[in-house]
Amino acid sequence: MLTRIFDTIDNHFDEMVEIRRYLHQYPELSFEETKTAAYIANYYEELGIPYETNIGGNGVLATLKGKKPGKTIALRADFDGLPIQDEKNVPYKSKVPGVMHACGHDGHTATLLVLAKVMQQHQEEIEGTIVFLHQHAEEYAPGGAKPIIESGAIDHVDAVFGTHLWATIPLGVLHTSTSAMMAGADRYEITIQGKGGHGAYPHETKDAIVLGADIITKFQQIVSRRLDPLSTAVVTTGIFEAGSAFNIIADQAKLVGTVRHFDSGVQEKIIQEMERILKGECDTNEASYEFNYVKGYPPLINHKEQAETILKASKNIKEIHTAEEAPPVMGGEDFAYYLHHKPGAYFFTGANLEGNPYPHHHPKFDIDEKALPTAAKTLISVYMQYQEETRDNQQETNTH
Amino acid sequence: MLTRIFDTIDNHFDEMVEIRRYLHQYPELSFEETKTAAYIANYYEELGIPYETNIGGNGVLATLKGKKPGKTIALRADFDGLPIQDEKNVPYKSKVPGVMHACGHDGHTATLLVLAKVMQQHQEEIEGTIVFLHQHAEEYAPGGAKPIIESGAIDHVDAVFGTHLWATIPLGVLHTSTSAMMAGADRYEITIQGKGGHGAYPHETKDAIVLGADIITKFQQIVSRRLDPLSTAVVTTGIFEAGSAFNIIADQAKLVGTVRHFDSGVQEKIIQEMERILKGECDTNEASYEFNYVKGYPPLINHKEQAETILKASKNIKEIHTAEEAPPVMGGEDFAYYLHHKPGAYFFTGANLEGNPYPHHHPKFDIDEKALPTAAKTLISVYMQYQEETRDNQQETNTH
Amino acid sequence: MLTRIFDTIDNHFDEMVEIRRYLHQYPELSFEETKTAAYIANYYEELGIPYETNIGGNGVLATLKGKKPGKTIALRADFDGLPIQDEKNVPYKSKVPGVMHACGHDGHTATLLVLAKVMQQHQEEIEGTIVFLHQHAEEYAPGGAKPIIESGAIDHVDAVFGTHLWATIPLGVLHTSTSAMMAGADRYEITIQGKGGHGAYPHETKDAIVLGADIITKFQQIVSRRLDPLSTAVVTTGIFEAGSAFNIIADQAKLVGTVRHFDSGVQEKIIQEMERILKGECDTNEASYEFNYVKGYPPLINHKEQAETILKASKNIKEIHTAEEAPPVMGGEDFAYYLHHKPGAYFFTGANLEGNPYPHHHPKFDIDEKALPTAAKTLISVYMQYQEETRDNQQETNTH
Amino acid sequence: MLTRIFDTIDNHFDEMVEIRRYLHQYPELSFEETKTAAYIANYYEELGIPYETNIGGNGVLATLKGKKPGKTIALRADFDGLPIQDEKNVPYKSKVPGVMHACGHDGHTATLLVLAKVMQQHQEEIEGTIVFLHQHAEEYAPGGAKPIIESGAIDHVDAVFGTHLWATIPLGVLHTSTSAMMAGADRYEITIQGKGGHGAYPHETKDAIVLGADIITKFQQIVSRRLDPLSTAVVTTGIFEAGSAFNIIADQAKLVGTVRHFDSGVQEKIIQEMERILKGECDTNEASYEFNYVKGYPPLINHKEQAETILKASKNIKEIHTAEEAPPVMGGEDFAYYLHHKPGAYFFTGANLEGNPYPHHHPKFDIDEKALPTAAKTLISVYMQYQEETRDNQQETNTH
Repeated sequence: MLTRIFDTIDNHFDEMVEIRRYLHQYPELSFEETKTAAYIANYYEELGIPYETNIGGNGVLATLKGKKPGKTIALRADFDGLPIQDEKNVPYKSKVPGVMHACGHDGHTATLLVLAKVMQQHQEEIEGTIVFLHQHAEEYAPGGAKPIIESGAIDHVDAVFGTHLWATIPLGVLHTSTSAMMAGADRYEITIQGKGGHGAYPHETKDAIVLGADIITKFQQIVSRRLDPLSTAVVTTGIFEAGSAFNIIADQAKLVGTVRHFDSGVQEKIIQEMERILKGECDTNEASYEFNYVKGYPPLINHKEQAETILKASKNIKEIHTAEEAPPVMGGEDFAYYLHHKPGAYFFTGANLEGNPYPHHHPKFDIDEKALPTAAKTLISVYMQYQEETRDNQQETNTH
Repeated sequence: MLTRIFDTIDNHFDEMVEIRRYLHQYPELSFEETKTAAYIANYYEELGIPYETNIGGNGVLATLKGKKPGKTIALRADFDGLPIQDEKNVPYKSKVPGVMHACGHDGHTATLLVLAKVMQQHQEEIEGTIVFLHQHAEEYAPGGAKPIIESGAIDHVDAVFGTHLWATIPLGVLHTSTSAMMAGADRYEITIQGKGGHGAYPHETKDAIVLGADIITKFQQIVSRRLDPLSTAVVTTGIFEAGSAFNIIADQAKLVGTVRHFDSGVQEKIIQEMERILKGECDTNEASYEFNYVKGYPPLINHKEQAETILKASKNIKEIHTAEEAPPVMGGEDFAYYLHHKPGAYFFTGANLEGNPYPHHHPKFDIDEKALPTAAKTLISVYMQYQEETRDNQQETNTH
Repeated sequence: MLTRIFDTIDNHFDEMVEIRRYLHQYPELSFEETKTAAYIANYYEELGIPYETNIGGNGVLATLKGKKPGKTIALRADFDGLPIQDEKNVPYKSKVPGVMHACGHDGHTATLLVLAKVMQQHQEEIEGTIVFLHQHAEEYAPGGAKPIIESGAIDHVDAVFGTHLWATIPLGVLHTSTSAMMAGADRYEITIQGKGGHGAYPHETKDAIVLGADIITKFQQIVSRRLDPLSTAVVTTGIFEAGSAFNIIADQAKLVGTVRHFDSGVQEKIIQEMERILKGECDTNEASYEFNYVKGYPPLINHKEQAETILKASKNIKEIHTAEEAPPVMGGEDFAYYLHHKPGAYFFTGANLEGNPYPHHHPKFDIDEKALPTAAKTLISVYMQYQEETRDNQQETNTH
Repeated sequence: MLTRIFDTIDNHFDEMVEIRRYLHQYPELSFEETKTAAYIANYYEELGIPYETNIGGNGVLATLKGKKPGKTIALRADFDGLPIQDEKNVPYKSKVPGVMHACGHDGHTATLLVLAKVMQQHQEEIEGTIVFLHQHAEEYAPGGAKPIIESGAIDHVDAVFGTHLWATIPLGVLHTSTSAMMAGADRYEITIQGKGGHGAYPHETKDAIVLGADIITKFQQIVSRRLDPLSTAVVTTGIFEAGSAFNIIADQAKLVGTVRHFDSGVQEKIIQEMERILKGECDTNEASYEFNYVKGYPPLINHKEQAETILKASKNIKEIHTAEEAPPVMGGEDFAYYLHHKPGAYFFTGANLEGNPYPHHHPKFDIDEKALPTAAKTLISVYMQYQEETRDNQQETNTH
């Protein structure tokens, strides 16, 4: 049966690419992705697959009931873009200035939509129920997963699986983990309040740019000196904004950034040291600060059993020559929340475009679209494997 | 005769305030001040005083010929605003978001316009010719003075005088200098080019924010370690802009700032050290940079004789209880250019608003409007004093 | 039999303490520990156990042949002190100014010496041959282990075991690892060459202290920004020495420090980044540098089988309530070299002195001497366990 | 008469050089210069000129009464060396390791001693009384001048003059000032108290070296950002000492340095900002500090009249082709104290050695010994000029 499904997927390769490229040209920022949501909803509308919109925000959830009994399993794809200017030179380059699908969510969405269309054609053979879970706002904490869960929309689901197309893993390689797979990811905003004034009279001011620079520099010590070298953490300031004129000393500096960790003790220590540095540095120059630390996605910890389901299921797919456990990655993922509520696991589908060395979130990021059918095949294979395993268990339960 | 002129000025105090407040509400940025230029032109139009517009850009030049022979003297007022958000709580607060007359050029303009109106009424008594020189774009190098000079518009002028309303000098005090009065003021723009990437993978990037912070910090050493402590200089970075998302490591940082000096040797040394620091710091992290240094206004050096004319003339004005030589200020002024071409001098008119401690270029900057008539009286008194001195000289020349 | 040996060890507790306290009062620096070596040699001399001195430097090696056949196993103890001023307030405080046994090597030596004395009394029961390996110069790379191995002195040995008394692990706890146990530890010396001069004329100099400070600050970025967050590394500058007078700008700064890592790729990256930073920073101020990086002890990787031998053997000792695998520690150990040449493993013996929170290398470092007999019992238990296991293997080999 | 004295000075050139070179080989540190003091005393002993020793410490004061009436004038020479390693390659190189006459005080002493010998031969012609004031400890605050004054030893003196051989001024040039001539010079000692520990466990420590580096870096902002750019000041840290072993994180860092200023308001502001920075920086890492700021020599402000006496007197000396007012220098001098108590003035005697570009306090510092007789001639010419001027005044007083 899988073979037939795989054939149908292959037959829809062009549509996958078409959808992915369309979405790539019209990316939307997190929490603002209304047109993309409408596009998704419209696709299900045309297919005649029942769906719900505005799930926990812009989320869309479609449901395809199989003809055979079985579990209800959600397959998740996220669909938001990033505030990055597309610098690729391709026909499907983003048409929205300063916004770009630089993380592959366009591919996730295309994969899941076409998989729905394919499975509708194989509906007779489906055990259980497939929930196509299109999640908004993965890129920006607090993210879309949390409100979707809180909406109750997946309460009835038995397990959740998802994949990320990964640009730095070769085609044909699948990575997952039986425990920690992705880091906890937090966001912070700091406003340094100094005292502005004429650029030629520094002694009458408290220069927020010089102070901001000192803070950035000092933050490096958190990882280099103040955390246990055996723990893993990142403190990145992604935005530094200060000043409005070359000859006016800035009264304010705004620093916005992210923290990554795999442990809440480390997370607390980082917050404490950031606070200590901010206070001390501002005191050195009679300045003040506001520090807003938003705890974001927790570390993504796969369920061991479901991770093994993935590894097993991947053996069915001839395009995957290597499926392996890999060390955790530092990126955060709000898929983590689903795994606090339901069994499940996450995996990376190798999608490296030959000759393109650019990582996720880079202005020249791109993927090899041949990874899309592979991702679709793996997702449905995992789905079937899970049905089989739970069916077996049930039978076992029955016999005993 | 001066007494009668002073009385007329006092009678026009309300109009001065009205004009100043109108302009205060509608500030325009340097080189974009077309509405202000039109307002000025219209004022002369209504008075029937001949004027020219578009002098060297948005400059306006009106000419009032006296009935008696004498020298041609330009009195200069600048009229551009600054990219600062007005934070004062007054009825005449700026109505243009992010733009503000935070340096008093509105007051300069009101003073000169009303002085023209007043002097028209005393035209019979005027020796020589008054040139009302309304200059645009003082706040932003290369400024308006240079193209005005290059246009030839003041070639026929014998001397140039000007004043700045000064918010940190008390009412009734006049400052000038017989030599260096204001600093040379340059502008620089630096673009650091690192390598962007995902916020959780710093080792795959060249973090432009951390590098920018290092450069800001290192720049402090130029003044603290690399210049002769006896020389005077300022290196201020007024803008630090980098990054677009909290979780993306910035590939670029933009630093924009100003340098102040009183000596071209010091200026060259600063440029050399900035370049050296930029190169070395970028090399520490395989980044690159662009460095655009725009030499701006040279130091403003008063002509000794004309500065003494100012000090002498100020004795006629009862509102001025103290007229003195003061140490140079670090602010730049493109009035400096006029003094490269013509005899003349510049002075500060005390304009401190009691209880307002905010310096020029501060979001709460304001002036005491009582300083406007004082400035007008001093300008015309200087004009007359200069006529008298040159008349005497001429007579002396004649007799011998 | 172990029980009887353990009883004898307990009966010699006072002597262990006495030896340890004597050595504690007379610590010697690495490579200069001739008196300690003589003390050790003398001890064996008096016991009549054959020994050799000047093994690979100051090393001492004593050999006790058992009456039964078996393997030859080296038990290693190091005996050098550290350049730290003892700040404890105890009767056995160091009598050598600026030198201190702040790492417990005095305890290691006392343990091994008394174990030799004890085992001599049980010589009849010993299988195989015990090599008491007293190693000099563990604290200072290139260390004593390497020349000892190169001397051929342990070529005939079948396996090597050793322990470290560990002040931050509670009494009764044993830590080991089946793979990475301790970090690679390197040493570097940097000399910054600026240009000296009078303290009041910074512009005529290249201030080596300010430049040294910049380099220290920049080094923090190696760990915080330039290494994969998932790798583990430390860059510590332990010495900063510059200047000879308060009013003379230093022409030289000397920075001496250590690098820790678990991977030679990381090690190479660190060296490369240090070099890059040194070059760039010196270029920012026309200074030069010398960079001497001495690759020190490699990571200590236990042999899996011998680590398991330790865990098994520790069950015999009633004082040990917990024996467990622990994450690696960042400290380096030249015991690592032995494990490149011979099977073996290393372990930590909990030695925390209640109420003393000070870590190794701290001026107030101390240990609970009750850990000494525990260490002795574990070492001999491991020895016997290893004999038993290899005997069993041999028998197995024989039967087949 | 001056001509004859000048001839005698010239005849003693070889002795001057001999004495200077002897002293150059045996320099002594401030407050420890007992052998030099004995050498000086012995010289007067042999001449039979009355002298006192141990004036305010190691000071020596010799008195030569003229045969004619007149004022009592002290001529001062300092005689201490510096903690610098002599790196010159000359026969008279310092024989004391780490100590050097790197400021020319050896030349001052040789000049004054030989001048005494010369003037003894011209005793008949001397008006008034010459006090040869040999001062110890000029290089190290609180210096020798203060205790000499407090000892009462110069209470009877009418005026004080002194000169400094200046290596960066050409032979034949004399610099003085009618007001500020040299800066106020203070000394500070800072001890940062962090928490030491093993070099591989930074998170268990408070690294005093990293913190010390941050403080050095932050101190640059005092001059660059926090003082009025028009004021003149230097903050130099001349010593940074921390750590005892490459693999031990330093618990303490010691920073010792100097501050230069021309104004006590600036001095207070610097102290305040140093304190603020120390507190804030230590707070960022839970460290503490001790801050010992010793206000040293005040700015040296010449008395206008006596400075003019110097300029006038210098016209008598054919070796001086240029005598001029010069801007102040940043170096401190405890000669400043004498000028708080007595009329007087200080001047620099050009002593540049052709081809030697090294400034004072440099390991390769040297002077052209031809400047010694010039200095001697100027001192005695100033002495005579002062006598003449006060004689005239007296006569004037008498006639009226």
